[in-house]
Amino acid sequence: MEFDLIARIRSRARLRKDVATGIGDDAAVLRPAAGHELVVTTDVLNEGVHFRASHPPADIGWKALAVNLSDLAAMGAEPAWCTLSLTLPEPDAAWCDAMLDGFFELAGLHHVALVGGDTTRGPLALGVTAIGQVRCGQALRRDTARPGDEVWVSGTVGDAAAALAMEQGGRQPDPFLHGRLLRPSPRVALGAALRGTAHACIDLSDGLVSDLGHVCSASGAGAEIIAASLPASPELQAAWPDDPTRWTWQASGGDDYELCFTAPPEARERVVAAAEATGTPVTRIGTITQAPGVRFVDPSGRPWSPSRSGYQHFR
Amino acid sequence: MEFDLIARIRSRARLRKDVATGIGDDAAVLRPAAGHELVVTTDVLNEGVHFRASHPPADIGWKALAVNLSDLAAMGAEPAWCTLSLTLPEPDAAWCDAMLDGFFELAGLHHVALVGGDTTRGPLALGVTAIGQVRCGQALRRDTARPGDEVWVSGTVGDAAAALAMEQGGRQPDPFLHGRLLRPSPRVALGAALRGTAHACIDLSDGLVSDLGHVCSASGAGAEIIAASLPASPELQAAWPDDPTRWTWQASGGDDYELCFTAPPEARERVVAAAEATGTPVTRIGTITQAPGVRFVDPSGRPWSPSRSGYQHFR
Repeated sequence: MEFDLIARIRSRARLRKDVATGIGDDAAVLRPAAGHELVVTTDVLNEGVHFRASHPPADIGWKALAVNLSDLAAMGAEPAWCTLSLTLPEPDAAWCDAMLDGFFELAGLHHVALVGGDTTRGPLALGVTAIGQVRCGQALRRDTARPGDEVWVSGTVGDAAAALAMEQGGRQPDPFLHGRLLRPSPRVALGAALRGTAHACIDLSDGLVSDLGHVCSASGAGAEIIAASLPASPELQAAWPDDPTRWTWQASGGDDYELCFTAPPEARERVVAAAEATGTPVTRIGTITQAPGVRFVDPSGRPWSPSRSGYQHFR
Repeated sequence: MEFDLIARIRSRARLRKDVATGIGDDAAVLRPAAGHELVVTTDVLNEGVHFRASHPPADIGWKALAVNLSDLAAMGAEPAWCTLSLTLPEPDAAWCDAMLDGFFELAGLHHVALVGGDTTRGPLALGVTAIGQVRCGQALRRDTARPGDEVWVSGTVGDAAAALAMEQGGRQPDPFLHGRLLRPSPRVALGAALRGTAHACIDLSDGLVSDLGHVCSASGAGAEIIAASLPASPELQAAWPDDPTRWTWQASGGDDYELCFTAPPEARERVVAAAEATGTPVTRIGTITQAPGVRFVDPSGRPWSPSRSGYQHFR
């Protein structure tokens, strides 16, 4: 080992009072809150698949944690602890320090303690396991959408896919859109505020068609989405002024890490209150139906279909 | 996705009563036991570093979980749940099924539920996070060895390193030794039985010199080890009849996943009782000293030094 990577990471890990033993023993020892359940998720980012080696290392570190916190947000959980498994082709102190800048910046925003991990040699990859807590029985789920529910999304959708398409086309992405791809903001506060109000919730990692499709199939239901209602950022509108083309990116593009959730019409005021309390824009985009499948309609009410399906899990 | 890998894994995951939501949502929801702390560890195995592509996939699956359960054992924790992050160069149903055979065989032995994970495309790697539980304040640690403690190891040491050396030398390893490398048995029952008796405990992943060195430096102490007392399997003795050469493998070789622990002399009977109750051989190999560092003595009491240092963490 050319530099003491573990000591380097450990020296930067801020602890919480509920961490009895952090980095430095065979395992971490953590004190769960009474009356709470644990919410656990894990995601790996691989170079060449989920990010490019040319991306700023701080952004890679940020995103590796962000995609996991987004899963906790979708469950309505409060993030608490995480581990980081770092696979590096060779020790590179400058790269690691910069990567940790982004990782710990996001961890600090959400009071998440890094409590353990692993460093191995191999092709560049970052694996994170995040653990959150939620009061018993309060976790949001994806299998609890009911026909008649309204379908909502937070923020805007399509931004990250647009940036990725620009990158892949050899164009420099618009800075706002690129930031949405490189530094997604997990909707942790909104997820927590939706407990007891939303019926079902998922985060948009693979794209709306795919992820809302998971909600529908798990719930034994379907959804009808008004394509023109999909919230678009001004930057996305500038990049794709043509409606149907933009809708396709918005419906199918992944990596937005917004929340998509359902709630009964009578909960509409509570949804808006949760959004306002957490400073998160939300938009109603359609309705849960008994008929299965995710269907779109255009402004004239005619069926419309995106030309590209969402990302698959195995990618 | 050429085959539905997640559904394939999910169909084989056995649940526990304390799993509220397993595989299939954004995150797992788990119910920790009252009065317990969580013990969390994570380890990644990379092809070409920690295993060979030619190794039986069932053994690779077994070992990916075993090295994590060994960390929980070293803390005296009861394993409960785990996640599996699988990075595959391409979907391969037969390989995955065989890998899962070994993974779930060991999970079943220790009543560990697989509750989540991730599947990505990339160079072959298996990342596991294991979560166990231990009564508050009862976890074993590595920084609590005291001068005068006796140093113990479970089982035998050096077997895995011998098998690895045979493999690397192009020889077919002895089947027993190879099994020790490919399918380590985490000493979960012994770790739990040592709570309240052992002062410090660690698992032997990097080798005795390195791992006992961690115990000593964390505890502000040192150790004197009697080289001739290192427990050797008959197969290892047959492979290396020459004492000093064998001692070097035993002192420096990694991957045995035995426990190394310290306990005061007056606890000797309780250590032996814990070993007998769990059917685990244990051997006294030396003493914790005030003088720092891990030192060895030969049968004549003269200082002896292994010629090869233990594996580094970054490998």
